[in-house]
Amino acid sequence: MKRRYSVFLANVGSCFDRYCPAYGRAYSVNELLDRIEAIDGLDGVDLVAVPEVMDAAATLQREIGTRNLETVSVATDIFTKEIWKRGSFSSTDVSVRRAAVDHAKEVMDLTDSLGSDLLTIWPGQDGHDYLFQSDYIQARQWFMESVAELCDYKPQMTVGLEYKLKEPRTHSMVSTVGTTILMAQGTGRDNCKVILDYGHALMGYENVAESVAILKQFGDRLCHVHINDNYRLWDDDMIVGSIRTHEFLEFLFWLDRTGYDGWLTIDQFPYREDGQQAVEESVKWLRYLESRLETDAAGEIEGVIARHDSVQSSRLMRALIGGRR
Amino acid sequence: MKRRYSVFLANVGSCFDRYCPAYGRAYSVNELLDRIEAIDGLDGVDLVAVPEVMDAAATLQREIGTRNLETVSVATDIFTKEIWKRGSFSSTDVSVRRAAVDHAKEVMDLTDSLGSDLLTIWPGQDGHDYLFQSDYIQARQWFMESVAELCDYKPQMTVGLEYKLKEPRTHSMVSTVGTTILMAQGTGRDNCKVILDYGHALMGYENVAESVAILKQFGDRLCHVHINDNYRLWDDDMIVGSIRTHEFLEFLFWLDRTGYDGWLTIDQFPYREDGQQAVEESVKWLRYLESRLETDAAGEIEGVIARHDSVQSSRLMRALIGGRR
Amino acid sequence: MKRRYSVFLANVGSCFDRYCPAYGRAYSVNELLDRIEAIDGLDGVDLVAVPEVMDAAATLQREIGTRNLETVSVATDIFTKEIWKRGSFSSTDVSVRRAAVDHAKEVMDLTDSLGSDLLTIWPGQDGHDYLFQSDYIQARQWFMESVAELCDYKPQMTVGLEYKLKEPRTHSMVSTVGTTILMAQGTGRDNCKVILDYGHALMGYENVAESVAILKQFGDRLCHVHINDNYRLWDDDMIVGSIRTHEFLEFLFWLDRTGYDGWLTIDQFPYREDGQQAVEESVKWLRYLESRLETDAAGEIEGVIARHDSVQSSRLMRALIGGRR
Amino acid sequence: MKRRYSVFLANVGSCFDRYCPAYGRAYSVNELLDRIEAIDGLDGVDLVAVPEVMDAAATLQREIGTRNLETVSVATDIFTKEIWKRGSFSSTDVSVRRAAVDHAKEVMDLTDSLGSDLLTIWPGQDGHDYLFQSDYIQARQWFMESVAELCDYKPQMTVGLEYKLKEPRTHSMVSTVGTTILMAQGTGRDNCKVILDYGHALMGYENVAESVAILKQFGDRLCHVHINDNYRLWDDDMIVGSIRTHEFLEFLFWLDRTGYDGWLTIDQFPYREDGQQAVEESVKWLRYLESRLETDAAGEIEGVIARHDSVQSSRLMRALIGGRR
Repeated sequence: MKRRYSVFLANVGSCFDRYCPAYGRAYSVNELLDRIEAIDGLDGVDLVAVPEVMDAAATLQREIGTRNLETVSVATDIFTKEIWKRGSFSSTDVSVRRAAVDHAKEVMDLTDSLGSDLLTIWPGQDGHDYLFQSDYIQARQWFMESVAELCDYKPQMTVGLEYKLKEPRTHSMVSTVGTTILMAQGTGRDNCKVILDYGHALMGYENVAESVAILKQFGDRLCHVHINDNYRLWDDDMIVGSIRTHEFLEFLFWLDRTGYDGWLTIDQFPYREDGQQAVEESVKWLRYLESRLETDAAGEIEGVIARHDSVQSSRLMRALIGGRR
Repeated sequence: MKRRYSVFLANVGSCFDRYCPAYGRAYSVNELLDRIEAIDGLDGVDLVAVPEVMDAAATLQREIGTRNLETVSVATDIFTKEIWKRGSFSSTDVSVRRAAVDHAKEVMDLTDSLGSDLLTIWPGQDGHDYLFQSDYIQARQWFMESVAELCDYKPQMTVGLEYKLKEPRTHSMVSTVGTTILMAQGTGRDNCKVILDYGHALMGYENVAESVAILKQFGDRLCHVHINDNYRLWDDDMIVGSIRTHEFLEFLFWLDRTGYDGWLTIDQFPYREDGQQAVEESVKWLRYLESRLETDAAGEIEGVIARHDSVQSSRLMRALIGGRR
Repeated sequence: MKRRYSVFLANVGSCFDRYCPAYGRAYSVNELLDRIEAIDGLDGVDLVAVPEVMDAAATLQREIGTRNLETVSVATDIFTKEIWKRGSFSSTDVSVRRAAVDHAKEVMDLTDSLGSDLLTIWPGQDGHDYLFQSDYIQARQWFMESVAELCDYKPQMTVGLEYKLKEPRTHSMVSTVGTTILMAQGTGRDNCKVILDYGHALMGYENVAESVAILKQFGDRLCHVHINDNYRLWDDDMIVGSIRTHEFLEFLFWLDRTGYDGWLTIDQFPYREDGQQAVEESVKWLRYLESRLETDAAGEIEGVIARHDSVQSSRLMRALIGGRR
Repeated sequence: MKRRYSVFLANVGSCFDRYCPAYGRAYSVNELLDRIEAIDGLDGVDLVAVPEVMDAAATLQREIGTRNLETVSVATDIFTKEIWKRGSFSSTDVSVRRAAVDHAKEVMDLTDSLGSDLLTIWPGQDGHDYLFQSDYIQARQWFMESVAELCDYKPQMTVGLEYKLKEPRTHSMVSTVGTTILMAQGTGRDNCKVILDYGHALMGYENVAESVAILKQFGDRLCHVHINDNYRLWDDDMIVGSIRTHEFLEFLFWLDRTGYDGWLTIDQFPYREDGQQAVEESVKWLRYLESRLETDAAGEIEGVIARHDSVQSSRLMRALIGGRR
């Protein structure tokens, strides 16, 4: 299977953190699209529905299509404005919950108009920071009701929930592979699916390959994948492959094994790098890593995972990256 | 609600770790029961079906009853022998899977005979250490089939799955609150429930109070609670309350709020302490912590969690441990 | 000993993170000072030498003094501008190293003029993100030479190095209590000291009380303390005491025991809270926690730490927060 | 430089953990030596002075020599017996401190007689579990005095302190690279050095290559290296290279760059593996990883680390494991 790669629009630009408001200069939407177009190996773009993107709605389809890119998904912007700081779909304020649903419907319209059928929801501000701060049951109930309304708004579209253990909240509501599947089930809608961000899963001490398997086994809910790298304790959002090798190989193997035929969307934060170069690096790493799996001509991997033997697994991994048995 | 406390039999004895085979002397089953009886505030005992316990089956009921204790639960011993080292209910070896089920049925018989209706399953050896070592889907399938068979063996009993992120495996199969609920669902049996170990949940960066809420919300699956304390990165199994205060208060509050009416079973490893004294300490801490919640005469907590305001939560926590607003 | 409390100026205002550029409105320097003045229990303010502060240099002394506050310290701003993104005193670019030293000297002048003798250096951008990215020895050498130059610039002042394991870099150069003492030694200057941020130390799995002891034992290098709270895995910068109780008690005890007579400066990020209320909460917590230590009338703590007995330590901690033995 | 590999004697046997007292059968000292001899690529053995080893003192030299092995080091056994459970060189009991010193001198005699000049001290039981349990300053003082006495006992030998953040204690006294250098300094003896265990350093979120650099820069204290692999949050003691690739490459590069000419001693716990096969795997991984560094014919690495550029570092790492630029 030839895997297709996409990238979040802002990834090829500059970013900020809580200390430094500008690590580099600002880029317009069209400049960012130009920079993506110039990277060999990218066929798609994922958007976040920030004001500049919503304002460009009328011309976006043309600008993207002209550059031979596809719109893979659009994400709701329920995290960059003060209104969302205490939650969106699960806010204790009914007017905020309503505003979140209304915004998401607009984004679904935009997504649809751009030829994509995937809405991305990363509810970073939903959750809690302090103990004794939340009614966990009520908050989840509100969240699931809101998402169900979105699922019904355009039943032909997929509504994807992206989980992350923490940040910006110290505890996210949509947090781990298991609880997110339960919430997707809880909406009672089949078009509510799960988005796996490789780095988010790693941060939660998930074996990401196993998370792919779990998503397959319990309802076949995986609809999209974000990819980056980190040191396992925080969402460092680094260049794919720059930290780990074996984990990516097993992850890519399980994507194939479970029949995942969607995109891999690069999602990183190039604080100190040129964003375009950092994304290009990730593409090159992905190609290299995928090429290593092709060396498994005889299907040796299947034999190894069936035997549950550490030493054989170790030998296999060494062989996959070019070492002898 | 008056909460009842139990303890694992071996907790009042001595323990070992991977470096030191004996931090203290060995105790017989009856000596251990004597030591539990002598601790004010304990009404129950949880057993693990190690050989010495199975061998004492004929006399255990009398020995426990004589000391005015109840048998709260019996745990399968699927982790102390070499046969289980590559898994029990999920082993790639069909004869091991069969042996695990047979053993568990014997333990159910014992549990029943001791007047308890709760089987504890902590599958510490099921999971994986290395990447490319497991067929995650097949392994879970085998596990769920085995557990379903146990659920059907004595439908009036509860089969409890105790989750833990890792150790002794680097990655447990029954790992987090969400994935464990999914596995319980996956057995297709209503008498398959979940056991929450406070320290296991903490280690996985769960807010344990929230885990209690999730267990309530998604199928009302909480059947038993183990309690201890740790530094959040490992299952240190320390004296309850010796590390954290606020987390226990919120946890105990949510047990009440969700109507949990089961036991709290102390489960710690007193490497360097006298086991009896360490357990007594935990009982005193639990009583103290529960007494603090009784100060919430006016139901202030409900008001605070409904407002989702950090500063009010902070004030509440200070008040609960005796500080002024 | 009556401990004195200070706060970082910006703490009573609003903050941003890498997702949300504004969780609340902006405040002027004078507004922030007004908000600090209004909090009962604060006697000092710590500044960061951002442009608005440097621009106000001429009037700052009067504005601070009028409000009955002292300037406790001023921190170099070597992290908010693009120029520092690949390091300051350790940059591979000699002109950046020079600019950092020049800036720091200006800040020392300001600090001096405000009646403080403490320069705070938190070199957040010095370190590395990726492997194979740094010459660790050369970078440390440059850093120590720069700091030595500052120490010589005003020998009557103290130059404090604030350590932090990571963030914004995935690996800071000034990272842990031990390596920071070594770097202070390495400057060859006695007026190079160490600033301990409670949350930074916790994040590195340090027992913060032990870090205070280490700073005493190896050169008596502790010159300043920042205080906040977190969940131990990230610098969450939360309200003091909102997460942990026992750790603060032991920490405050060891500050006294080692004769620390400096300030405690509150340093938190109130993303979703009103900054003023959040700081006020921290002051109330600190007072409450310090009051608990005063209950140790008979000097029981000294007896307990001399015996190295877990159960006695547990009893002591319960007594300190109001529980019976 | 041709690196020489050794292994801890027990590594090729069986092990236990706190749940399972026997994952495999017991082996005699001679059987273990036979198993090491049979592994291609091992030239040395590291011993722990457990009773079976001390009892074999008279014949060990011959048994080791006959198998064409060298004794690389002998480690004190200050962790397997109950006497040490509350510390060895830092115990609050003077008779325990004395016993530890006496034992260590006997081990130095044995080491000497086996032709090695390196004593390994891993003080796993020194440290603390609970807060308010230790007088950190006094304990370190006692520890340093004991070690100084050992350094003086045989000044021509090296006394190596092996650090580890935690386990079996929740907090070790000899814990991180920085604090361990300070303690070595604190003994006032030049023959007190530091042993770096790769997995221990990783567990403490150290960049291990940077730790090698720090050990060089601050007193040139590195005297020995233990090697294994883990998931960064615990001392999993797994097969070398089975988890990480890039970290090992950078680590090996810095060993060369700082002129380390000692051994690499494999130190792992093969709970579920055949110990001999697991060690053989580590040797093969080490050879493979070292061979990758030899591809850096033009000294490209030096150029990359001098430039401090993430993208170039990423390209370099991909090239080192066989990918194109």
